[in-house]
Amino acid sequence: MRDYSGLASRHLETLDLHHVVADVIFLRARTNQSLIHIAEAARTRLYRNDAEVDCGRHTKVQPDVIGQEIDCMVAQNEPLVVEKIVALYSSLDHAISEPGLEAKRTIAGAGRFDELFAAHRLAWSHLWEECDVSLEEHGTPGTDLKLRFDIFHILQTVSPHTADRDVGVPARGWHGEGYRGHIFWDELFVFPFLNLRIPALTRALLLYRYRRLGAARRAAREVGYRGALYPWQSGSDGREETPAAYMNPLSGRWISDQSFRQRHINSAIVYNIWQYHQATDDYEFLYFYGAEMIFEIARFWASAATYNATIDRYEIRGVMGPDEYHTGYPGADLEKYGGLNNSAYTNVTVAWVLDRASDVLELIPRAQCHWIRERIGLSGEEIERWRDMSIKLRVPFHGDGIISQFDGYDHLAELDWKTYKAKYDNIGRLDFILEAEHDTPNRYKLSKQADVPMLFYLFSADELKILFDQLGYPFGYDTIPKNVDYYLARTSHGSTLSRVAHSWVLARSDRRRSWELFQRALDSDIADIQGGTTPEGIHIGAMAGVIDLVQRCYLGIEMRANILHFDPALPDGLGRVKVRLRYRRQILRPVLN
Amino acid sequence: MRDYSGLASRHLETLDLHHVVADVIFLRARTNQSLIHIAEAARTRLYRNDAEVDCGRHTKVQPDVIGQEIDCMVAQNEPLVVEKIVALYSSLDHAISEPGLEAKRTIAGAGRFDELFAAHRLAWSHLWEECDVSLEEHGTPGTDLKLRFDIFHILQTVSPHTADRDVGVPARGWHGEGYRGHIFWDELFVFPFLNLRIPALTRALLLYRYRRLGAARRAAREVGYRGALYPWQSGSDGREETPAAYMNPLSGRWISDQSFRQRHINSAIVYNIWQYHQATDDYEFLYFYGAEMIFEIARFWASAATYNATIDRYEIRGVMGPDEYHTGYPGADLEKYGGLNNSAYTNVTVAWVLDRASDVLELIPRAQCHWIRERIGLSGEEIERWRDMSIKLRVPFHGDGIISQFDGYDHLAELDWKTYKAKYDNIGRLDFILEAEHDTPNRYKLSKQADVPMLFYLFSADELKILFDQLGYPFGYDTIPKNVDYYLARTSHGSTLSRVAHSWVLARSDRRRSWELFQRALDSDIADIQGGTTPEGIHIGAMAGVIDLVQRCYLGIEMRANILHFDPALPDGLGRVKVRLRYRRQILRPVLN
Repeated sequence: MRDYSGLASRHLETLDLHHVVADVIFLRARTNQSLIHIAEAARTRLYRNDAEVDCGRHTKVQPDVIGQEIDCMVAQNEPLVVEKIVALYSSLDHAISEPGLEAKRTIAGAGRFDELFAAHRLAWSHLWEECDVSLEEHGTPGTDLKLRFDIFHILQTVSPHTADRDVGVPARGWHGEGYRGHIFWDELFVFPFLNLRIPALTRALLLYRYRRLGAARRAAREVGYRGALYPWQSGSDGREETPAAYMNPLSGRWISDQSFRQRHINSAIVYNIWQYHQATDDYEFLYFYGAEMIFEIARFWASAATYNATIDRYEIRGVMGPDEYHTGYPGADLEKYGGLNNSAYTNVTVAWVLDRASDVLELIPRAQCHWIRERIGLSGEEIERWRDMSIKLRVPFHGDGIISQFDGYDHLAELDWKTYKAKYDNIGRLDFILEAEHDTPNRYKLSKQADVPMLFYLFSADELKILFDQLGYPFGYDTIPKNVDYYLARTSHGSTLSRVAHSWVLARSDRRRSWELFQRALDSDIADIQGGTTPEGIHIGAMAGVIDLVQRCYLGIEMRANILHFDPALPDGLGRVKVRLRYRRQILRPVLN
Repeated sequence: MRDYSGLASRHLETLDLHHVVADVIFLRARTNQSLIHIAEAARTRLYRNDAEVDCGRHTKVQPDVIGQEIDCMVAQNEPLVVEKIVALYSSLDHAISEPGLEAKRTIAGAGRFDELFAAHRLAWSHLWEECDVSLEEHGTPGTDLKLRFDIFHILQTVSPHTADRDVGVPARGWHGEGYRGHIFWDELFVFPFLNLRIPALTRALLLYRYRRLGAARRAAREVGYRGALYPWQSGSDGREETPAAYMNPLSGRWISDQSFRQRHINSAIVYNIWQYHQATDDYEFLYFYGAEMIFEIARFWASAATYNATIDRYEIRGVMGPDEYHTGYPGADLEKYGGLNNSAYTNVTVAWVLDRASDVLELIPRAQCHWIRERIGLSGEEIERWRDMSIKLRVPFHGDGIISQFDGYDHLAELDWKTYKAKYDNIGRLDFILEAEHDTPNRYKLSKQADVPMLFYLFSADELKILFDQLGYPFGYDTIPKNVDYYLARTSHGSTLSRVAHSWVLARSDRRRSWELFQRALDSDIADIQGGTTPEGIHIGAMAGVIDLVQRCYLGIEMRANILHFDPALPDGLGRVKVRLRYRRQILRPVLN
C-alpha cells in the first residue's frame, strides 16, 4: 500500500458563498491547479404531513463553509421530514451558460426527493437490465451478490453520465485518492464487459485516448521514437505521471519506479479499439479516430524495435511486462539500463498489433487511409517493416516449451517459496519483503502478477496458434496448461488482477482451481485482501475482470474476424448463468446450464 | 439588417498579463458572463537568412494589452523576417491541464511558421479532396470559384476542429456578431452536404442538440405541452433567445417578434437525425441519442395538436412557418393571439415526423425502446395518437390545388407588386416598408421566403405523394409546378434562403429560371445582396444551400428507406459536375455530364 497522507489534500479554493432565496444557499469553488469551477446550490425544506413547514432560518457563513440554522417547533413523536436537495455543476459540463446559473436554475425547478429518487431508481433498473449477470451458484452463497457489487461499481465509474465527458477509467474508480486519479490500463478489463452491454460507453473511453494522441506523440518523440507512446499513468492532459520512486513501508527506503517502461499499455489501447470495433462494427469511429491511433501505436513499436541480423529477429529492449516485480536485470543500474529485453507478453501483443494495423490499412477506404498516412507521414517502408516484424519478433523460450517472461528469465534463481511463506503471513508484496532484506525480486523467477499468462487471458488458443505459427514458434495443445502451471507456481499475486488472469487460464484445464481463484478475486474489495488498500478506492480492473470471467471466459465468448464465437465451460460451482448481450445489432440472451 | 452597435461589445475580462521567457508573452482572460477562460501565449522571433537575430526586447503592459517592442539593426534592402506564433486554449478544451499551462507548453514546442503552415495546408488539401464540388459552367465564369468560397466557409464553421466540441451551427458562422451567435435551423441546409462528406461532423451537431434536450423539455412544459420544443434561437444552454421585438429602421418603431412560434425547427431536427441515419446507418447513435429526441419531438407535436371533430382532422394552431412575414392574422393582437393555424409546411413535416417516430419504435431493439419509453413516460395512447394524427393532420388548400400556406391564406389581399417595385429599389424587406406605411404583411398574400415550396426542397415528389395520399389529400403530377408558380409570384426573397429553395423546386420544371436563382443565391455573401448584412457574418444556411443545390438537387440524390437514389438533371448552364460522396461504407465518385 502507498501512503498518500503526506500529499496535498486541499484541492479547492472557495470563490463565492451566498444565500440565494430563503431556502437556498450557494457555493462556488475552483480547483486550485486545473481552475475548474464547481457550483452548488442547496435547498433545505421541512415537511410535516407532506405540507411544508414555515420555519426560521439563519444563514451562517464561515471560510469555505455555508450553512443554515433552521428553527422550527416540533411536538414529541411528531414526524418531521428534512429534505435537502443539491444541484451541482462544473465548468466542464456541456450545454450550460455557466455552472452557477445552472445550479440555481436547476434547484429552482427541482421537485421533491421522491420524484428525484423515482427517476434515479428507474435509471438504475434499466442499467441492471442491460448489465446484469444472473447466476446460480452451488455451495458458495453470495457469489451473485458479490458479482453485482462489482457490476454496480463499474457502473458508478463508467456510465451514461460519463459518456459525454472527457474521462477515462481511473485505477481506483472515483472512490478514493489512490494513484491520484491517474488512468492506467484498467479499461483493458472493463471493455470486454461493456462492449457487449453499452458500447456507447466504451466509444467514449476510446475518445478519451484519442484526445491525448498528441501527448502520446510527444512522449514517443521524447524517448527518441516515432508514433505514439501512451503513458503508464496518464494525467489530465495525457502526460506521464508515473512517479520516479515509491517508498517501501517495510524498509523506509525509496525504490526506483520503472513502471513507465510498461509500454505494453500501447498495445492494450489497440486491443480495446479492436474489441470495440468487433463488438459494434462502428466503422465511422474506426475511420475518424481508431485507425490513426492504431497506426501511430504500430509505428511506435516499429521504431522501438531493433533488428538483430544474427538471429534474423526483431527485438524490443528495456521494457517491463505487466509483472511489476521485474524492473531490470539483476545488478543493473536501473536509472541507466532499466527494463528487460524481449518481454514475451510485450512482443506477442506487438505482433498482434502490427497485424491489426495491416488489417486496418485494407479495411478503411483508400482515400481515408491515404489522408491519415499523409497527415502522420507514414511511409511504405514503415508498413513493410510492420509486416516483417509481425513474422520476426523474438519470443524467448526455455525448458520444455516454456515461454520465457523475457530474455534471460531462465537464468534467474528459484525463490525458496516455502521459507518465505513460513516467515511472512502475506507474501503478496514480496518486492517489499525482499528489498527490506537488501535483496530484489529481479534476481528470482517470481511474479507479482500474471505476465505470460496474460496472453492466454487476451487471446484464445486459436488466435495464439495463428500468432505463434506466423512468428515461427511452436504452439501445441499443451502450451497453455504447461505455461500456466509453470508461472502459477511462481506468482505471489501481489496484484488483484493476477487472480483474474490465472482463474481465466485455468478455466479449461483446472476448473476447481479456477473457481477458487475466481472466488478469491471476487473478494478483493469486500474483504480488503491486500490489507489496507480499500480506503484508497476500489480495484476497478479486478472488479471488471471477475465479471468478464463469468461473461466471456465461462461462456467462452470470442469476437474475431466479424464472427461471435461461443464455447461455454462452466465451473462446477456455477449452476446457471444468464446474461443479456449486444453484438452489433443483435440482442442475445444466452442461458448456460 | 439589424443594428447591433448599441449592444454590449465588451465580452472579456483580462485576468493575467505577463512575460514568460524573453520571446514569449502571455495573456489570460475570461468571458464576463459564461466565465470561460482563454489563454494565449505569443512568441515573436526575428530571422535574417533563416538565422535567428539577437534583438533587444521591451515588454509593455497596459490594461488588457501586452506587447513587446523589439529593437534590432537592419541594413537597407536587407530582408528581415518577423515571425509571430500564437497558441490559444480555452477552458472548454478537452485533454488539457489548464489553458494557461497548455498555451505555454504548446508555444515552447512550436516549430517555425513554415512547419505549421505545411500542416495547415495538408489538412486543407484533405478537406478539399473530401468536400470539393468540381464543375464546368457555360457562360457564368466564376461559378466554381463562388461555390468553393461557400464550401470554404462551411468548413471554417463546421470542421474536424469542432467535431469534438459542444458547438452548433450559428446562423452567421463565426464570422460576425449577427444574431449574437444564436443557433437557428441552419443545420437543416448544412446536413445534406456534410452527411455525404464527413458524417462525423453532422453526428457532432446532433449531439449538440441532444445535450439540450433537457432545455427543450422545459420549454415544452413552459408553454403547456409535453415532449421537447427546441427554441428558434438557441442560446448556450439551449434556452430560447428570440428577442421580444426588433426595430424597423425605416419607421424607428419596434415590431413584435413572433418568430419563437417557428416551431417547425423541431421537425427540422428530426429531419436531420433521419438524414444522418440514412447516410451512415449509425444505429449506435440512433439507439443512444437519436430515438429519444425523435420521440420527444413527436410527443410535443401530439400534445400541441387539437382534434377537431367537425372535420375529423387534427389542427396545429398559433404557429409560424418559415415565412417570417406572416406572424398572425390581420388585426389580431399578436401578444395574445399570435401565429397562424394549420401552417401547411408545419403540418406536412409533422406528419412526416410522426411516421419516422413510428418507424423508430420498430427499428430499435425492443428493450432499448422500452427503456426510453419508461424513462420519458411515453404511453401507448400517445403512440396511437401519432398514428392517427399522421393520417388526419389538416392541410389547407385553396383555388385549383394550391396548398394554402395556412388556414385563411386565401382570404388575404393580393399585394400591388408593380406599385411597390416601382416605388422602392429593393423590396426584399417588404415587412419594413409596409410597417413604415402603417400597414402589415399579415394582410397580404406575400412571402418573405419560401414556405410551402420548402416542402419540395425537403422531400421528393415520391415522398410527398406518399404523405399526401396517407393524409387523404390530392397530390398530382402538377401539384409541385403549380404551387411553385403560385408562391414564386408572391415572394419578395427577403431571406437568402429563399432563392435556394425556389431554385431547387424549379430545377425540374424551369431549368433556366432555376439557374438564375442559383446564380443570385451564389452571390449572397459576395455581392452583399441584402445591402449591409455581410459585416454581421456570412449566411451559412444559404451558402450550404447552394452547394446542396448542385450536390443533391442537380444530381437528384435522395436517401430513403435504406436506398440511395440518383435522378440527375443538370441545368443548361452546367457542363459537368464531379463530386466524391460517402454513403454508408461506400465511396462514390459520380461524374455528371
